[in-house]
Amino acid sequence: MAHMSNELPKIGTYHLTVDPFNVDFTGHLTIGMLGNQLLNCAGFHANERGFGISRLNEEDYTWVLSRMAIEFDDLPMEYQHFTVNTWIESVMRLFTGRNFEIQDQLGRTIGHAKTMWAMINVQTRKPADLLSIGDGGIVKWIHTEKECPIDGPSRIKVAADQPSDTIRVKYSDIDINGHLNSVRYIEHILNLFDLSYYKSHCIRRFEIAYIAECLFDDELALYQSCDDGDTFSVEIRKTASNEVVCRSKIWFKERI
Amino acid sequence: MAHMSNELPKIGTYHLTVDPFNVDFTGHLTIGMLGNQLLNCAGFHANERGFGISRLNEEDYTWVLSRMAIEFDDLPMEYQHFTVNTWIESVMRLFTGRNFEIQDQLGRTIGHAKTMWAMINVQTRKPADLLSIGDGGIVKWIHTEKECPIDGPSRIKVAADQPSDTIRVKYSDIDINGHLNSVRYIEHILNLFDLSYYKSHCIRRFEIAYIAECLFDDELALYQSCDDGDTFSVEIRKTASNEVVCRSKIWFKERI
Repeated sequence: MAHMSNELPKIGTYHLTVDPFNVDFTGHLTIGMLGNQLLNCAGFHANERGFGISRLNEEDYTWVLSRMAIEFDDLPMEYQHFTVNTWIESVMRLFTGRNFEIQDQLGRTIGHAKTMWAMINVQTRKPADLLSIGDGGIVKWIHTEKECPIDGPSRIKVAADQPSDTIRVKYSDIDINGHLNSVRYIEHILNLFDLSYYKSHCIRRFEIAYIAECLFDDELALYQSCDDGDTFSVEIRKTASNEVVCRSKIWFKERI
Repeated sequence: MAHMSNELPKIGTYHLTVDPFNVDFTGHLTIGMLGNQLLNCAGFHANERGFGISRLNEEDYTWVLSRMAIEFDDLPMEYQHFTVNTWIESVMRLFTGRNFEIQDQLGRTIGHAKTMWAMINVQTRKPADLLSIGDGGIVKWIHTEKECPIDGPSRIKVAADQPSDTIRVKYSDIDINGHLNSVRYIEHILNLFDLSYYKSHCIRRFEIAYIAECLFDDELALYQSCDDGDTFSVEIRKTASNEVVCRSKIWFKERI
């Protein structure tokens, strides 16, 4: 790919379609599947530009998603086309910031996302220095001219003594690294809410911070608190160790 | 679409790629996501030829998947391309048979699937006569020249008194019709098996029969019996009514 890299634009543009099994009962793309698609686009963008997982694995490093905030006015529906633009906003020693813009099939911007990623050594699980790895090649892809007009991930605090639910990590939850799949966290969190609540409310912003890895058969307790009327914070802890593995915050709004 | 229909071949051919979040811990496409893709291709094939859901909904009818049998020697891996060919094998009064052929990125045939579908009236939930609906237009798409060399769905019997697991239908399980998503059944069934079993065994054939619809908050009991060493049958019943909603059979083989 090296000969291609310099010819590519800093912003990667990907055209996608909403599969019928990726929508919820309202017919809109689910947040889990939107997250899935954004992470796919991040992978395409990085691989095409020579700093993706397919290149890194040869060198024993992999990207790990640390935080994600998604905010949107609307979501595409079953069989509709949509477009994802993604670019690298910043590169620090331990983290890189990647932004996303989501456009509907008419080209109107309907949402944005901000993500933070670390790179770890697959053997030691320790973070790598992004400024030195691969000759710091990622830095030349930084693009700051394009706006991503949403707040970054916030500090999430959960005030709850008792879990709202407990789940066990099962075969279908496990990704290629043997860990709980990043998309499944989102689905398990959104499963805390009742269908009747989704009937009267839709999500307008979703945040998640991935803190520790979960393995097959781990029992997870989901703690939930209501921050104000329609905003909720969720913390997931391993039942056995009480270790926090993930925090999330969801902003709902009433459907009109 | 009417002006296009007669120019299309009877076999629909679709080129797909395995997304990284659609693989299991071995890096292979999951059976659930393979099922998802086959059902998508069925939708594309039917819509392009004028008997898909987008056309039928105008007339208050919808397709319902009744049975599926998938058999394969291999499954594509993360980021690999694969091809699905699909065609209508038969049309009876209440059911139509649709076959699939799955090819890897080198064009080698790696698997097949047979499916049976009914059409129901969305209002009455009663089956429609496929030979009379839409002027019987589906009949002209029947293609019997191509082989689909696997057994059709079998009769599944489960000998078990006690459920192996119970689950509750949650928000992320629900499809656009308000029912438990066809793909989620597959995932819940495959979650019955331990990761250590998947480490020593892989699936070579999977069958499912959809019998009744499940709604949000239904509690489902999964009954499981071992037919012989590496073949298992599963029956899902609603806890409240004991009504059978689904049966499945899974053929594993030892990994070499």
